[in-house]
Amino acid sequence: MSLKKTYSFQIQPQFVDFQFRATMSSLGDILLTTAQFNADDNGFGLRRLNEMDCSWVLTRMAIEMNRFPEQYENIEVETWVEEVGRANTTRNFCIRDAKGEIIGNACSVWVFFDMKTRRAKDLQTLEGIHDFANGEEGLIDKPIKLGAVDGDEYDGFKVKYSDIDINGHVNSIRYIQWISDCFSLSCYRKYQVKRFEINYVHEMLYGDFVEIVGMKVEDNDFRFEIKKDDKIACRARVVLIPNTSTDL
Amino acid sequence: MSLKKTYSFQIQPQFVDFQFRATMSSLGDILLTTAQFNADDNGFGLRRLNEMDCSWVLTRMAIEMNRFPEQYENIEVETWVEEVGRANTTRNFCIRDAKGEIIGNACSVWVFFDMKTRRAKDLQTLEGIHDFANGEEGLIDKPIKLGAVDGDEYDGFKVKYSDIDINGHVNSIRYIQWISDCFSLSCYRKYQVKRFEINYVHEMLYGDFVEIVGMKVEDNDFRFEIKKDDKIACRARVVLIPNTSTDL
Repeated sequence: MSLKKTYSFQIQPQFVDFQFRATMSSLGDILLTTAQFNADDNGFGLRRLNEMDCSWVLTRMAIEMNRFPEQYENIEVETWVEEVGRANTTRNFCIRDAKGEIIGNACSVWVFFDMKTRRAKDLQTLEGIHDFANGEEGLIDKPIKLGAVDGDEYDGFKVKYSDIDINGHVNSIRYIQWISDCFSLSCYRKYQVKRFEINYVHEMLYGDFVEIVGMKVEDNDFRFEIKKDDKIACRARVVLIPNTSTDL
Repeated sequence: MSLKKTYSFQIQPQFVDFQFRATMSSLGDILLTTAQFNADDNGFGLRRLNEMDCSWVLTRMAIEMNRFPEQYENIEVETWVEEVGRANTTRNFCIRDAKGEIIGNACSVWVFFDMKTRRAKDLQTLEGIHDFANGEEGLIDKPIKLGAVDGDEYDGFKVKYSDIDINGHVNSIRYIQWISDCFSLSCYRKYQVKRFEINYVHEMLYGDFVEIVGMKVEDNDFRFEIKKDDKIACRARVVLIPNTSTDL
């Protein structure tokens, strides 16, 4: 049995930005959908975990894009579980275009979460899941623990109905969108995101006030922090490179 | 040749709200995707129109839901062109669940738009499109012209990167999301949207300040207006009914 599996997607019009390219948040969405499809195929999907009063919680993710797929492009996302530790499990992704060229890679880290105790649960207790870890590293650096950000306020607003997922928390993808929205259209005309890295720290709830602070640590290397009151909701790093599109 | 065609969708986790139900904006998205698939199948899709420096512009839409499909539900959207006038064309939708029961209906009105002159174009000049109009009415009232709203300010914020589509305007679906976000989680626990009706008036651009005003005209009948400065971007009507879910 092969431990790597590939899922196909088409970049729908609602996935693209003003430059016809998939947004980072829609790519994040595709990756989470891929993870869910593959976890279901392996027998460890959310539906099965929910029956055990457990869930998967995404704690870290890194996405690196060489090229952003455009509207109507077909992409293939290959995914596999690299390792299953006691505290978390690492799932990698490789994104290819229709020609088979690698256009991006991603790495995600997940915690096995007990919804009754509201705590992480030892993955040793999830029988059979270790058989799906193939030990194969991804093609990019794993997401690391990001440090505190002492930056300028970029944005502030309240969490709304459409931000909330079935767990009553802000949807993981929304944070990617909020951080992507810290850059202007003219920035996206000149640059594209090479690496987007995120640490999820505390969940945000309906009505919470979102405060986004950011700082430039080096040319083209930005750090962000999303806070509610004194708590950190998430931290992120965004590395830009010049826009590779030739027609701009 | 049948002039009605059906397209299948599955309600993905990112389409649902905190009650596991598809949001109105994700249903709007599915309807626009259906319209696009069917227009492509008929030979009058956006890609072909774009080659002629033309486009479809959605001017009005009404969606009525008897029941909101839940996460992972498979739905079928049947669509057909009712009529093609000189100024606009009407496309209807009927949404069924896996059992074949009708769970919702929608009606959309589109203008054939000349991107060079930035004006509507006579549909008489689009040869062959009239063959696709079957004259069959939809099962709900057509969207009408909504009147001015003299209401309270519900929300205000700036248009951001992720709101902008390939035409450089705010995405049509985003307005549905913004209006849906005017209701609280506790409102959605008690009520659900029976009818969502929207008129698109003026496009909004990156950096525009969005002001949302709303008023209750009758019990469970709300009107909204999204404005930028003195211009109306869109008007909407939202009719609520008690939440039909039995488990709440």
